[in-house]
Amino acid sequence: GKKVLIVYAHQEPKSFNGSLLKIAVEELTKQGCSVTVSDLYAMQFEPRATRNDIVGRLHNSEAFNYGVETWEAYKRGALSKDLVEEQKKVQEADLLIFQFPLFWFNMPAILKGWMDRVLVQGFAYDLSKAYDGGLLQGKLCLFSFTTGGSKETYATRGDIRYLLWPMQHGIMHFCGVKVLEPHICYAPENVSDEKRKEMLTAWTQRLKTLWKEEPIDCSPEWYFK
Amino acid sequence: GKKVLIVYAHQEPKSFNGSLLKIAVEELTKQGCSVTVSDLYAMQFEPRATRNDIVGRLHNSEAFNYGVETWEAYKRGALSKDLVEEQKKVQEADLLIFQFPLFWFNMPAILKGWMDRVLVQGFAYDLSKAYDGGLLQGKLCLFSFTTGGSKETYATRGDIRYLLWPMQHGIMHFCGVKVLEPHICYAPENVSDEKRKEMLTAWTQRLKTLWKEEPIDCSPEWYFK
Repeated sequence: GKKVLIVYAHQEPKSFNGSLLKIAVEELTKQGCSVTVSDLYAMQFEPRATRNDIVGRLHNSEAFNYGVETWEAYKRGALSKDLVEEQKKVQEADLLIFQFPLFWFNMPAILKGWMDRVLVQGFAYDLSKAYDGGLLQGKLCLFSFTTGGSKETYATRGDIRYLLWPMQHGIMHFCGVKVLEPHICYAPENVSDEKRKEMLTAWTQRLKTLWKEEPIDCSPEWYFK
Repeated sequence: GKKVLIVYAHQEPKSFNGSLLKIAVEELTKQGCSVTVSDLYAMQFEPRATRNDIVGRLHNSEAFNYGVETWEAYKRGALSKDLVEEQKKVQEADLLIFQFPLFWFNMPAILKGWMDRVLVQGFAYDLSKAYDGGLLQGKLCLFSFTTGGSKETYATRGDIRYLLWPMQHGIMHFCGVKVLEPHICYAPENVSDEKRKEMLTAWTQRLKTLWKEEPIDCSPEWYFK
């Protein structure tokens, strides 16, 4: 069976995001996948990139450089325990699903902190190993999120794909991860119960054939056509 | 004199970002501006959007909805003290400068957390008051950041303006804030001392005539032409 890591960033299990998470865990488990969830708020995951992420002495204690220090710490096995645990989950996964509500055209800070702290140099990429050569080659990812505004809001203010560039291309593609079509539920708080049920059913249906999907072409044309 | 708030997200005062901050404080003070700095790492600013941001009872304790709860708390004066203090600084400022190193085509999580938690509904925007009608009308902002990669890296992988869309348009424009041209220092860690000095001088020079600048046209054409 395939291994899936769901990185989940919502405070409330009864939320629509909570329902989407539950569906993914149930459906993928039913398929025989092994599913792990990093429930960031429940874990009180630390989003701040600080000196605390390095155990023991610094490479250069004169002037703290987070990128250099975490790279060095990765190489000598001196990253903090919470990071090592997340990296192990990523390493084992065939598919990463990010489930979150869009906050300000972007991930919530707690999820951005997961990206900042877990995907360190040496683990996720290296100077000469980025994009299609990134160190997380062979893995798939999928951004599944809810919005506050309606689909029309995003259409009049610029295509919603514009905001996927930093996440899908700047982070995942950079690490060599192939990106599946995003899954977007528009404004679940402002639609009827029936419409919400339809959205949940659509997610279940999509998951049934997920492993047959081809990744998107993560190039500027996909985002800005 | 004008009032300036600099929201600064770097761990190390001796860093290049630290130098850019110091220059901005000195130059703007010399001009007679009143400058306030929110030094997020030094303040150990909390990036996580949680129930702790609301003092006292919740509007709906059955299912926690951060957007609704902070909106309600704002209206009845029940947001946590750290948020009220940041909102006061924003309210008083004519210009907001965001100074940070680009992390993953984006702001560091600690700065994203500032956006998520400080710019709540009722304070920064309202249902019918967004974009040019946003509640922070009359203010200016400027994103000043350093990158890890060279200018050429961003040019071959898509224009760097693509990644400014969520920050400048999705956040600041949404709140009614006018956006000045971003200030980007490419790869200060990988250039000569002389080049670094030139970059610092260029920032000082720009600040000298900052108040004469016209805001950019925050439309899709500016970002994706």
